[in-house]
Amino acid sequence: LQEKQNSMTKKLPSDSVINLDHGDPKMFEPYWQKMGDKCTVVISGWQSLSYFSDITNLCWFLEPELVEEIRRLHHLVANAEIEGHYIVVGTGSTQLFQAALYALSSPDSAEPINVVSAVPYYSSYQAVTDFLRSGLYRWAGDAYKYKGDQPYIELVTSPNNPDGFIREAVINGSGGKLIHDLAYYWPHYTPITTPADHDLMLFTVSKCTGHAGSRIGWALVKDKEVAKKMTKFIELNTIGVSKDSQLRAAKILKAVSDSCRQDYDNFFDYGRGLMAKRWERLRSVIGRNGLFSLPEYPMEFCNFFGELTEAHPAFAWLKSEEEESKDTESFLRAHKILTRSGKHFGVDTTYLRISMLDREETFDLLLQRLSNMSSKGRENGA
Amino acid sequence: LQEKQNSMTKKLPSDSVINLDHGDPKMFEPYWQKMGDKCTVVISGWQSLSYFSDITNLCWFLEPELVEEIRRLHHLVANAEIEGHYIVVGTGSTQLFQAALYALSSPDSAEPINVVSAVPYYSSYQAVTDFLRSGLYRWAGDAYKYKGDQPYIELVTSPNNPDGFIREAVINGSGGKLIHDLAYYWPHYTPITTPADHDLMLFTVSKCTGHAGSRIGWALVKDKEVAKKMTKFIELNTIGVSKDSQLRAAKILKAVSDSCRQDYDNFFDYGRGLMAKRWERLRSVIGRNGLFSLPEYPMEFCNFFGELTEAHPAFAWLKSEEEESKDTESFLRAHKILTRSGKHFGVDTTYLRISMLDREETFDLLLQRLSNMSSKGRENGA
Repeated sequence: LQEKQNSMTKKLPSDSVINLDHGDPKMFEPYWQKMGDKCTVVISGWQSLSYFSDITNLCWFLEPELVEEIRRLHHLVANAEIEGHYIVVGTGSTQLFQAALYALSSPDSAEPINVVSAVPYYSSYQAVTDFLRSGLYRWAGDAYKYKGDQPYIELVTSPNNPDGFIREAVINGSGGKLIHDLAYYWPHYTPITTPADHDLMLFTVSKCTGHAGSRIGWALVKDKEVAKKMTKFIELNTIGVSKDSQLRAAKILKAVSDSCRQDYDNFFDYGRGLMAKRWERLRSVIGRNGLFSLPEYPMEFCNFFGELTEAHPAFAWLKSEEEESKDTESFLRAHKILTRSGKHFGVDTTYLRISMLDREETFDLLLQRLSNMSSKGRENGA
Repeated sequence: LQEKQNSMTKKLPSDSVINLDHGDPKMFEPYWQKMGDKCTVVISGWQSLSYFSDITNLCWFLEPELVEEIRRLHHLVANAEIEGHYIVVGTGSTQLFQAALYALSSPDSAEPINVVSAVPYYSSYQAVTDFLRSGLYRWAGDAYKYKGDQPYIELVTSPNNPDGFIREAVINGSGGKLIHDLAYYWPHYTPITTPADHDLMLFTVSKCTGHAGSRIGWALVKDKEVAKKMTKFIELNTIGVSKDSQLRAAKILKAVSDSCRQDYDNFFDYGRGLMAKRWERLRSVIGRNGLFSLPEYPMEFCNFFGELTEAHPAFAWLKSEEEESKDTESFLRAHKILTRSGKHFGVDTTYLRISMLDREETFDLLLQRLSNMSSKGRENGA
């Protein structure tokens, strides 16, 4: 344990490569350390041996404690309508996304159903949709360009990964089915303006609380048959979902809900404060160096905080303000900053995505290097 | 906690439907209860936030503690050669089976590769292979009947599920790739005669220790590129494997290894004793009622126990000795015993599989009902 704590606090060498390619949510570690034993999960050797959690539930591998805490948190935050929805638990929302594709496609169809999302779209959607060359579904790219009159599945990520904007479906066709990926629709990232009430919504513990290593996500699903088919997918794919992680997730979500009812240590307040500070510092550095621009987000009334707030997304979506053809990812890699190029999100290499969720010292190094780029640029007369 | 313990010990009503369709391994609960705190896992709120476990490992989401305990247990039991193999962790061996299909198939091939297994084969293989209608692989049924000269993947399950026999590959073709599913190759189920040393071997905590709810399996893989592709599959499918369950599995496997080094409470000794007793009682009841027959297993020298032992498989594979066309599954269902018909294993309905791994009182009810069938049979003059 001590060793683990040490590895968390040991200083990064100042010339380290910093990896901000993934959205690895380590920034919440100090909060969870402060919470101490309240969030410690203890599992005895004889617990949770069975494959089954609750055979009376449509999703038979879903732990009742987790159901309760998911319901409670959505009620408190009011970011999603939970009544009238079935809950399906998954090994992260990535598995649930595949379960949804399986559930919304038809085994009798001659052609795979087209899966689309508006650019810039989450970089993993294409690979995850196509890697098994399924005869049920296939990636069909940018939703704005979708012209077919065939049935389709549109992915709506809101707030969007990579750019942080609130989104709605862009295709107005019949025969369309929607998957709403709401991984970032939490008050530390964005104003909560209304409880989302879509047919199929995906959430994940990873981005809500930072516990990515637990691999727990959940879907809220209106249609019973779709929820059943998603459950079937997870049965065939992994025979259920880790009970240990479900029990831990229940404990962590409980701590978040409990924190929302007190004036100090409110998790979302803490998270919003941290994100706001980071965004402020990033905007200041980016503003000074003139190499990049950042999106601007509108102020909106957040029902959770009861005040006007601004989005502080989990990723910074940078656009190069220099020559148009510039490969910004390579440019930053030369400065030992690993990021993800716009080309993975269906746009060009002048864009790039940087994780805002790493540890504080990593973020500090990022800002330091971005600042140096600017001053070097000036010295060279650029 | 008390509530959970109560639910484990509360008596089944004597007219309950008993579900022995799945191999839900609840029989080891009393052992783990006896072990007490030694096997309790404690995970703090701030631990394991990251997606990553060890970025220097090919399988970057594999926890170092689990690696150590997998190595130690295989060394102690000598059921598999671990040197010269990469370890890939999965969300149960079901996910690893799919990862193996992905890794052993070719994305450039015009036709999906054929996946075969000798009858009777594990009932899930077909559904798991075909449910996404992959263009990479497809189920092609009984390996004994496989005649193609195309590349193929042969699944070798040893000891076999459902019938408990030790197996080798049955096709002697070129271009064949093998997956060895060794979930039951542990000393409580079968004599350990040699350390298995195949290209790709699958194991699971579920059947080894009974912790099915944790969904942890591992693959031992000789070829580096295959191990990399399997890791890629798991990255795309679930972005890694629950760290909480990996840490718990490490603790449980450690307890098993520790128990092997002492004279009392040896886990495999306990497990073998329990299984041997159940098989003896089942054979006695089956022998008396005359409705079914059971496979006979040879005595072999088990290197682990250092003596001649017999297999005591996790499933009983019953064959009806009555009319040939009898649907034994329906017959037992009428007696409130849920089992799995031979038709799911590629053979006919005169066969059926019964789990031997449920709680003691469920097993008692099974024997009681099988005994009553026999006496009722006799009363009716059958």
